[in-house]
Amino acid sequence: MYRSNNCGELRSSHINNEVTLSGWVQKVRDKGFMVWVDLRDRYGITQLIFDEERTPKAMMEQAQKLGREFVIQVKGTVIERASKNPKIATGDIEILVSELTILNSAILPPFTIEDETDGGEELRMKYRYLDIRRNPVKNSLIFRHKVTQEVRNYLSNQDFIEVETPYLIKSTPEGARDFVVPSRMNEGQFYALPQSPQTFKQLLMVGGMDKYFQIVKCFRDEDLRADRQPEFTQIDCEMAFVEQEDILNVFEGLTRHLLKEVNGVEIEEFPRMLYDDAMRLYGNDKPDIRFGMQFGELNAVAQHKDFKVFNDAELVVGIAIPGGNSYTRKEIDKLIDWVKRPQVGALGMVYSRCNDDGTYKSSVDKFYNQDDLAKWAEVTQAKAGDLICVLSGPTDKVRAQLSALRMEMAERLGLRDPKVFAPLWVMDFPLLEWDEDTKRYHAMHHPFTSPKPGQIELLDTNPGEVKANAYDLVLNGNEIGGGSIRIHDKATQAIMLKHLGFSDEEAKAQFGFLMDAFEYGAPPHGGLAFGLDRLVAILGGQETIRDFIAFPKNNSGRDVMIDAPSKIDDLQLEELSLKLNIKS
Amino acid sequence: MYRSNNCGELRSSHINNEVTLSGWVQKVRDKGFMVWVDLRDRYGITQLIFDEERTPKAMMEQAQKLGREFVIQVKGTVIERASKNPKIATGDIEILVSELTILNSAILPPFTIEDETDGGEELRMKYRYLDIRRNPVKNSLIFRHKVTQEVRNYLSNQDFIEVETPYLIKSTPEGARDFVVPSRMNEGQFYALPQSPQTFKQLLMVGGMDKYFQIVKCFRDEDLRADRQPEFTQIDCEMAFVEQEDILNVFEGLTRHLLKEVNGVEIEEFPRMLYDDAMRLYGNDKPDIRFGMQFGELNAVAQHKDFKVFNDAELVVGIAIPGGNSYTRKEIDKLIDWVKRPQVGALGMVYSRCNDDGTYKSSVDKFYNQDDLAKWAEVTQAKAGDLICVLSGPTDKVRAQLSALRMEMAERLGLRDPKVFAPLWVMDFPLLEWDEDTKRYHAMHHPFTSPKPGQIELLDTNPGEVKANAYDLVLNGNEIGGGSIRIHDKATQAIMLKHLGFSDEEAKAQFGFLMDAFEYGAPPHGGLAFGLDRLVAILGGQETIRDFIAFPKNNSGRDVMIDAPSKIDDLQLEELSLKLNIKS
Repeated sequence: MYRSNNCGELRSSHINNEVTLSGWVQKVRDKGFMVWVDLRDRYGITQLIFDEERTPKAMMEQAQKLGREFVIQVKGTVIERASKNPKIATGDIEILVSELTILNSAILPPFTIEDETDGGEELRMKYRYLDIRRNPVKNSLIFRHKVTQEVRNYLSNQDFIEVETPYLIKSTPEGARDFVVPSRMNEGQFYALPQSPQTFKQLLMVGGMDKYFQIVKCFRDEDLRADRQPEFTQIDCEMAFVEQEDILNVFEGLTRHLLKEVNGVEIEEFPRMLYDDAMRLYGNDKPDIRFGMQFGELNAVAQHKDFKVFNDAELVVGIAIPGGNSYTRKEIDKLIDWVKRPQVGALGMVYSRCNDDGTYKSSVDKFYNQDDLAKWAEVTQAKAGDLICVLSGPTDKVRAQLSALRMEMAERLGLRDPKVFAPLWVMDFPLLEWDEDTKRYHAMHHPFTSPKPGQIELLDTNPGEVKANAYDLVLNGNEIGGGSIRIHDKATQAIMLKHLGFSDEEAKAQFGFLMDAFEYGAPPHGGLAFGLDRLVAILGGQETIRDFIAFPKNNSGRDVMIDAPSKIDDLQLEELSLKLNIKS
Repeated sequence: MYRSNNCGELRSSHINNEVTLSGWVQKVRDKGFMVWVDLRDRYGITQLIFDEERTPKAMMEQAQKLGREFVIQVKGTVIERASKNPKIATGDIEILVSELTILNSAILPPFTIEDETDGGEELRMKYRYLDIRRNPVKNSLIFRHKVTQEVRNYLSNQDFIEVETPYLIKSTPEGARDFVVPSRMNEGQFYALPQSPQTFKQLLMVGGMDKYFQIVKCFRDEDLRADRQPEFTQIDCEMAFVEQEDILNVFEGLTRHLLKEVNGVEIEEFPRMLYDDAMRLYGNDKPDIRFGMQFGELNAVAQHKDFKVFNDAELVVGIAIPGGNSYTRKEIDKLIDWVKRPQVGALGMVYSRCNDDGTYKSSVDKFYNQDDLAKWAEVTQAKAGDLICVLSGPTDKVRAQLSALRMEMAERLGLRDPKVFAPLWVMDFPLLEWDEDTKRYHAMHHPFTSPKPGQIELLDTNPGEVKANAYDLVLNGNEIGGGSIRIHDKATQAIMLKHLGFSDEEAKAQFGFLMDAFEYGAPPHGGLAFGLDRLVAILGGQETIRDFIAFPKNNSGRDVMIDAPSKIDDLQLEELSLKLNIKS
């Protein structure tokens, strides 16, 4: 027995108990005649005391030589602390040590093991096992565990069955790039790692499993943007004999349960918004509705007034920034520079100040009179003291730009409080989206999403207009989940694949098993998948997901701690019937 | 709403309720004036009734045309059944249908969807989604879910944290063959899929995580024996600040909890056996102790008696088969043929009948008198009426052969009752085992297992004799879990790797991160991993694991349902800097 108690549980009620503790040396304070040691483990910190009067000399010296992060075991008596520390849970007591054993020494860590560390990102990743000793990381991992346990218990209590689907599956050309796994036993052939268990969960529905979930790793071999990982975790769910409404109810219930159990926040019904409205009002399919600043489309009131920039634009759209009239000319100029940055990409910005006396002062007074500007204020819901910012251009681009400005201003105004939670369902996504690179339509969610009833005919005439039975769950401006009602008959699935550019042969080779399955009695079904990493980070009040992943990879997909990926033996390649084909 | 109730829940208390049910047509019985349909879903079967008097003609005809596995929705009234069926939970009622909707038709399934099906293994795998509709498979998957939920809740309640470790890790030459994943972003380099999260869980201990578990997929690219899968699931556990005894207690507790909650079986303390004793008494490191038939080593009493076969043998060893004296000469000859099969590999078998009158009749009466044979009976604990079977040869081989015979005879005698549970700890495994192929020692568990205190010096002189702090949990003759106390200091780890044939450079390249970690304050730690697939199958009273895996692969590592692995595009290979190197 290395310990009778952990370092976070002793209280005054334990005074006079004989205890054994083990842990890491967090700090040594040596006053010569007295030595205090902060002993740390996962559960907390307990103060140890050694003193001239009560501690044998040899042990005293041993204590004085303890270094940071040494692993020690002590036996001793719980005593009342002379000067109590109300900041820590064990602050009323300390341990008068009678036996000290060094279990393992430690060399100096490359960064300090404190809540605020001096270690940079790359160094922390290289020594992730030391980083995990720090409270922010350790608590994030424990928090993640708590969330997943809540998810599992909630869904299990509702008769969902967690079923493990395979990791070694089949590569498909649709969607993101697959990671592949060469097969030794099937020469020249490859498995793929799943981007999601999509087809398997649908087959489980065909198999009558009815209510399925799985917390499961998924893989995408895409160029990594910040805060994207090649492997990520999904809460993957599917139900049979359901309509969209049933699915929304169940997973709204789950999300509400998590917010309550994990965050202590009670939220009634989640608002819902059509995709088209989200784009129109927020320029974004995952609007952050913790704050207002809805878009006002100004075409009707700002065009045909001799201002060529607006007249030529597909969309003229503005937002009112609360209190923005207090900005100096210089500050506004900086804001204009900000929207012109390549990351945002606007060509310019028009503004109108809303003065306290009800007048307006705009950057385009030459073209617009007070009545015109009053209409701008009306459309953007601007109040006295606000600043109306207006962008113009092609609809898609200008919406993205104004959305970026809206988020930036909310950040500056402190409106994105991580302790406030504003969930939102976004509904009726388009079925397809146009891809400029490949000059064809792609499935916006995936090829198994069903079109809205009666819209399948539109696929031939106006594919971009077809809406899907697809929905996203948005939390604080992040998509935390998305799903759809699926196609469950072979004919519709075949039409869908044809429109995505699959020949009959390709469709059969890739998804024949699924379309065959639909012939043997497939129930109506649909589902949803949550991105667990993101969900946990947001519930934990954080912007980045890395601290919620025990061993994340860097932006080149490397694990810098274990130094992976790495070269493999020639023999391994030989066995896999592969040769390297290095270009450089 | 596709249903108000499921097909397993309606009882007489629901009589006169208006209900909506959805499910699959299990069976149609058409008497002309009356049609009964068994409607099936995950939860059970409910009988629907249509009759001339109460059902409109059109609906009657529709009902008569329903095929097996059609997916339908019905509305109707719960009524009392004329002839009740006590065999099913809903047998007191039936539904008088007022509305019938065909949600999806079905073509004839390739095998019957019944508990006993006419479908062979390969066909069932190809149409696994239909196989899953059958109770034996469906219930096995639900059972698996129940077991994993119990495991998670038990461990969580004991402060274990489930931490997800990465799937894209580093290939190591030690142990089984890795599946590898080429990296597109790191040209010419590969990830490996984990054979287990071994090093990561140890790093979590170095990181202070203290009590870790994970239910996680692992991968081994080995030639597949029956009932082995290239991907399998582990309950992976690790603890810090523990001795072997602590680990055994925790996981014995978990196993006892599962036996109680899942099987309703209460078992007190699990017996423990040294590895050496297990080999001596059962010829096997995972003895099935549901029954006796312990080995009796006969060298002392059977050698030096002019019987050359025994005199030349390293080991002469026998078992007493209860009631075996009733076998005819012909039956015994067949048994001798059985031990000579290549799968067993014995050269022959000597036997001695234990007659009811206390005399013996052996196949080697020429060499052994009654006194000699009495000693055989004493050593093998044979009673009157038993048959003593004796094998001889090199120790390792003959033990394996006699163990096979022991298991076979127990099977024939009905002593391997799947409803009886006999757990056993096997302790003190050898640290290393000799491999004839590579002519060197390999780690018996893995290179991180610690030797018994004070035995590390033996590594140089007598490596095969070194015992490890390693233990297996055996249930009914199957290893369901195994683990060890780990090495937690750099020097010992370096010695161990050297003895496994790693050069300093190789050791550093492969496991440098772990040995570095040990320098920063590594606590004593150890753990255990359960094979979930096997555990669930045994708890479920089954011999084979396939029905407990939703989508298993066949013996060539193929998923015959989705037809994976498969060829990939040249473009994919090009992007991965690979070329095929097909030999045939």
